[in-house]
Amino acid sequence: MKVVVMTGIPGSGSTTVLKTALENLDYINVNYGDEMLEIAKNQGIVENRDELRKLSASQQKEIQKEAAKSIKKKSENQNIIVDTHCTINTPSGYLPGLPEWVLSELQPDCFLILEADAEEIFLRRISDTTRSRDMESIEDINTHQQMNRAASMAYSIFTGATVKIIKNHDNQVEKAVEDLVNTLS
Amino acid sequence: MKVVVMTGIPGSGSTTVLKTALENLDYINVNYGDEMLEIAKNQGIVENRDELRKLSASQQKEIQKEAAKSIKKKSENQNIIVDTHCTINTPSGYLPGLPEWVLSELQPDCFLILEADAEEIFLRRISDTTRSRDMESIEDINTHQQMNRAASMAYSIFTGATVKIIKNHDNQVEKAVEDLVNTLS
Amino acid sequence: MKVVVMTGIPGSGSTTVLKTALENLDYINVNYGDEMLEIAKNQGIVENRDELRKLSASQQKEIQKEAAKSIKKKSENQNIIVDTHCTINTPSGYLPGLPEWVLSELQPDCFLILEADAEEIFLRRISDTTRSRDMESIEDINTHQQMNRAASMAYSIFTGATVKIIKNHDNQVEKAVEDLVNTLS
Repeated sequence: MKVVVMTGIPGSGSTTVLKTALENLDYINVNYGDEMLEIAKNQGIVENRDELRKLSASQQKEIQKEAAKSIKKKSENQNIIVDTHCTINTPSGYLPGLPEWVLSELQPDCFLILEADAEEIFLRRISDTTRSRDMESIEDINTHQQMNRAASMAYSIFTGATVKIIKNHDNQVEKAVEDLVNTLS
Repeated sequence: MKVVVMTGIPGSGSTTVLKTALENLDYINVNYGDEMLEIAKNQGIVENRDELRKLSASQQKEIQKEAAKSIKKKSENQNIIVDTHCTINTPSGYLPGLPEWVLSELQPDCFLILEADAEEIFLRRISDTTRSRDMESIEDINTHQQMNRAASMAYSIFTGATVKIIKNHDNQVEKAVEDLVNTLS
Repeated sequence: MKVVVMTGIPGSGSTTVLKTALENLDYINVNYGDEMLEIAKNQGIVENRDELRKLSASQQKEIQKEAAKSIKKKSENQNIIVDTHCTINTPSGYLPGLPEWVLSELQPDCFLILEADAEEIFLRRISDTTRSRDMESIEDINTHQQMNRAASMAYSIFTGATVKIIKNHDNQVEKAVEDLVNTLS
């Protein structure tokens, strides 16, 4: 069975596109952060997501690895779409969501990147009053998407996976869903 | 002796430039796909290229590895230019032509990328009536060349190879040949 | 303690920014080339930088590795900023400054890239009469910075480091210094 990783920066619309596409796919969805949280809870290390974030780098790395193993195991019986961050834009810079020790356990078949124009993402973020987001400039949004392309292409070299870029332009969510379904069918 | 990998997307003109440059280089040319086919034939697994394409992913991976070993072995006595795809634009996304298991066997010294402007490549593809090609947009051609740059730079980290970009603009094929010869001389 | 790698192409102003930022940081600075030279001298292999450059690729690789080990060891007691080249633009192409065998020893926490607009860098290089530099076109400068971003993102996958891009625009060196200090504080 297949393991597919789906990423998209905030405002790319990946949650909506993924949710709709799943109705027409023989895949189940696993969120990487949820998997990590469950593992850390089961090990009695944390009780919630905030505590998970505050763990040491080496502890987080260990849990990240366990999550990759656990997801890979689940894929023995079913196709899985893991949604996660390609890179996270932190104050210390872009942090890769799938470092080498995750890739070697997860061995994904495909990296999906959901993108939109930086201007579209900028305006979607402004309009989204439900989340408080640090406002990035259009240049920063462009850079983030460029770094995610570079990261994904490098990820693929470790595992031989493909990298598929899917566009989710304004008012074309059906097209994005269709592209996603076609890619995985 | 050296192993150099030469890539260029369809329409970049890599076949013409490579053929002409070889007249002035102490290198022999090996096509990666041909090498894979020969190995698969010798092992009695396939009889032609079509059957090669239809093998399972794990079988293809094994033959890909054997081809890398075989080319590396040939380079003991002579300099070799391997022509292959940096990434292949498949329906599932960009597939890396030189995943980790190929790089570790092949250990190339240099990755050459032949490029042209996306507009030039677009028009060359339209004019080329001898091949039926899926028409990519200018944006897609740009993206493919960008992904190839990122892939090549990541490849180089595994082996310490250099990444050389050579431009093959319209009516400047002599310049491209000269740049290629100078890079390898 | 932390190991941070700082890079910037010639004309990005990395030397100035780094020197000023160090006044406000609990970090010491190590230049990768100096470290390599010292190691090669101590081993009695070379007497100066010119001889270092003329060593065989395999000898350079060995010294490069030793330098990474030595810097990592120094970081047991203090935070270190290593200044080096992300990629070097050689006649054979872009050479990665931190190939896999360096990354695995050095295990950096963060890659800092100092950038400016290609036009700014072009004019800074023209005005700098103290160094004789091969003049690169604005397009080439753009390409070099793009390749460095891709290389850095790929580096980060090996170690889980972050990649921070800091802009050093004309007449805004204080801003660049501030961004650098904030990133590491």
